[in-house]
Amino acid sequence: MPVNLSAPVAGRLLSVAGVSLGIAQAGIKYSNRKDLLVIQLDAGSNVAGVFTTNRFCAAPVVVAREHLAAGQDIRALVVNTGNANAGTGEQGMNAARTTCAELAKLLACAPEQVLPYSTGVIMEPLPVEKIIAGMPQAIMTTDIVAKAVSRQVQINGKTVTVTGIAKGSGMIHPNMATMLGYIATDAAISQPLLQLLVKDAANASFNCITVDGDTSTNDALMLIATGKSGVVIDDTNRWQMLEVVTEVATLLAQAIVRDGEGATKFITIKIEGGKDEAECKKIGYAIAHSPLVKTAFFASDPNLGRILAAIGYAGVADLNVETLKLYLDDVLVAEHGGRAAGYQEADGQRVMQQSDITIRVVLNRGAVNTTLWTCDFSYDYVKINASYRS
Amino acid sequence: MPVNLSAPVAGRLLSVAGVSLGIAQAGIKYSNRKDLLVIQLDAGSNVAGVFTTNRFCAAPVVVAREHLAAGQDIRALVVNTGNANAGTGEQGMNAARTTCAELAKLLACAPEQVLPYSTGVIMEPLPVEKIIAGMPQAIMTTDIVAKAVSRQVQINGKTVTVTGIAKGSGMIHPNMATMLGYIATDAAISQPLLQLLVKDAANASFNCITVDGDTSTNDALMLIATGKSGVVIDDTNRWQMLEVVTEVATLLAQAIVRDGEGATKFITIKIEGGKDEAECKKIGYAIAHSPLVKTAFFASDPNLGRILAAIGYAGVADLNVETLKLYLDDVLVAEHGGRAAGYQEADGQRVMQQSDITIRVVLNRGAVNTTLWTCDFSYDYVKINASYRS
Repeated sequence: MPVNLSAPVAGRLLSVAGVSLGIAQAGIKYSNRKDLLVIQLDAGSNVAGVFTTNRFCAAPVVVAREHLAAGQDIRALVVNTGNANAGTGEQGMNAARTTCAELAKLLACAPEQVLPYSTGVIMEPLPVEKIIAGMPQAIMTTDIVAKAVSRQVQINGKTVTVTGIAKGSGMIHPNMATMLGYIATDAAISQPLLQLLVKDAANASFNCITVDGDTSTNDALMLIATGKSGVVIDDTNRWQMLEVVTEVATLLAQAIVRDGEGATKFITIKIEGGKDEAECKKIGYAIAHSPLVKTAFFASDPNLGRILAAIGYAGVADLNVETLKLYLDDVLVAEHGGRAAGYQEADGQRVMQQSDITIRVVLNRGAVNTTLWTCDFSYDYVKINASYRS
Repeated sequence: MPVNLSAPVAGRLLSVAGVSLGIAQAGIKYSNRKDLLVIQLDAGSNVAGVFTTNRFCAAPVVVAREHLAAGQDIRALVVNTGNANAGTGEQGMNAARTTCAELAKLLACAPEQVLPYSTGVIMEPLPVEKIIAGMPQAIMTTDIVAKAVSRQVQINGKTVTVTGIAKGSGMIHPNMATMLGYIATDAAISQPLLQLLVKDAANASFNCITVDGDTSTNDALMLIATGKSGVVIDDTNRWQMLEVVTEVATLLAQAIVRDGEGATKFITIKIEGGKDEAECKKIGYAIAHSPLVKTAFFASDPNLGRILAAIGYAGVADLNVETLKLYLDDVLVAEHGGRAAGYQEADGQRVMQQSDITIRVVLNRGAVNTTLWTCDFSYDYVKINASYRS
C-alpha cells in the first residue's frame, strides 16, 4: 500500500507541447503488463540527464550516454521494464543498440537520436525481439502513468509547463530499486544549461531518497526541453526554472519512496546544523539505511535509541554526542547524550503511529542542513524481494 | 534456528586456570533469564580489549576504557543483558560506576579493578539495583554458555589453553547487533603484547562479521591472560599465540552470525585479488549489507545479478567489471561483465539450497584477499526486530 500517495487526478496532468507518450504490452517478462514506453520528441528538443554511478552500469546506460554525447537531436526515449539489460556483457550492448536502431527505423531518424532505458532483472538476456514487436503499438497508444506531476510557472510573462513521470507501480514494475524519471518542459533551454539544471535537480531530489540503500545499475533522470512555449531560459531566469524542475523532481522522488517495496511509513530525515553536506548525508543515510531503525518504525515502536546508535556509527569521527538533539516531529527525544528530561514515551508513541513522520537531528556544529526521505522495513519488503523472480 | 551451530559438547570446553564464571537471573528486563555474568580473575592476570567505534558509545564502554587505562590488576568483568546503558548521559555513567563499585566491595578490590559491559535496549535507565542484588548469586553459581570454544596448543613444550565465550542466544539476549566476546588463556602475556594480540585477532574475526550492518554502541572483545600455565609469550612465540586466539575469536564470531536474527543461511564472502584491504572490505560489505542480496539468499533464489549490482555500487571508483569473476561456491557465475557462458541456472540453484554458501569475487587487480561472514535476511529478522521491546 503506497503511503499517502494517490494517482494523479485526471486533467491535472498537463501535456507538454512537443512530447508524446506511448505504451505497449510487449510481454518482456509477464504477458499482461504495460512494459514498454516510448517518449517521442519533436525536432529541436534538447535532452540532458544524470545516470547511475554503479560500476556495473547497464548496457542501456552506456548507450544512452554515447548517444547524448553524439550531440544529435534526440527524437525518442524507449523504456522497458521486466529486464534491466545489466550484467549482460557484449550481448547486452548489442541488444540496446538494436533497440535504438529498430525504433529509429519506425520514426525515420538515426539510431543515435534514440535513448534506451531498462529496468528489471539483472544478468538475463534482454528479449529484444519482443521489444521490437511492441514498438508499433507503443508509438500509437497513449496512456496515463501512475507517478506523474505537473506544474506551471510564469516566466517572461508566459506560461511554462513542466510535467514529470517516474517509474512506479502500475506502469513500471516496482520491484527494484531502479529509479527512472523523465521530466519535460516546453521552455527553450540550451544543452549546457539543461545539463546543469538536471544535475542540480537530481541532487536535491532523486539523490536524497533511499528505500534499501541499493544503488541500481540502471538509474536515470532525464530532462527534456522542447522549446515550444517560446520562453527562453537564460541566466536571468534559470533559478525560476530550477525551482520548478526541482519541485517536480522532488515530488516524483518522494512518490517512489511512498510506493517503496512494502512501505507503511514515509519518513523525512532532516539533519541540521552540520559542518558540511557530506557529514549531514553520512548521518542521514546511516539512519535511513539502518534495518534496526526501519523495523522499529514498521512496528510503530519508539525504540529511538536505535536512531542514536545509527548517528553514532555514521562515521563522523569528531561528532560530539553531548551537543546534538534528536526530535521526532516536534517531540524532543534526546539531548546531552541521553534521553531528554521532558521526554515521555507516550509522546514518541503518538508520533510513531503516524504514516508520515519526521526525524530531525540538530547537530549544532555548523550551518548546513540536509533532507532525505525513506520508508520503513516490513514483512512485505522481504516477501517482495524474496519472490521477485518467481 | 541457528545455521549449523550446535552447543559446545560437555567436556570439550576447557576451563582456564585463574578464571571463573558465574551467572545470575537478576531480572533486568525479564524475570526468568540468565542476564548477569561475572567473570572473576585471579590476581596477576592481564586484560586487553577492543571496543566499539560508535560515537554514542555506551557508559560501560567509557568506564571499561578508563579502568583499563588506570593500569591496575583487573579482577572481574561484569556483563548484563536486557539494557545497554547507552544514550543514558550522566545518569548512565553513574550507573556503570556504581556497578563496578558494588562488585568491588563483594570481591574486596578497588572499583578500577572491575570492567563493566552491557547489552540490550538503548536509552533506558540501567536498573542498577537489580544488578547489585544479582551479584552474590553470580559470583557463586557457575553455568555453561551457548557460544563457547576451547583450543589447546603446545608452546615451549607446555600446554596452553584458550577458551572464549561470546554473547549468544541462551546466556545473552540475541536481539541486538551488540557483540561481546571474552577470551581467556593461561599463558603469561604482557599488557602491551596482549593489546596487540586482541586487536589483530579482532580484525580477523569480530571485525569481519555483520548481520545487519548496525554497529552497536556496546561492542567489546576482551582478551585475558592469567599466566597460570607458566608459559611466557614473547616475540619468539607470539605468532603461535595469535593463531590460536584468532581461531577461537573467529569461531565465536562465526557463531554469532550463525545465530543471527532470523538467519537461515550462513554466507562466507571472499574477496580476492584486490589492491588493498580497504577496497576488498568495501566490496565485501556492500554485498553483505545489501537487503536485495540477503533476501535472495533467504529465498534460495540464484538472482545473482543483485551481487553484481552491489559490487558495482561499493564505491571502488576505478573498478573494471570486465575483468572480475563471480563464483558461488565452485560455480563460475559471471565474467567479462556478464553471465559466464557455461553458467547454468540449475548450478546456481543447487548451491543456493545449501545452508552454508560461499560467494567468491576475484577482482584480478592485486594480491590482497579478505573474508567476511554474514547471514541472510528473513521474515523472522523483521519479526524479531519489530517486536524487540514489546
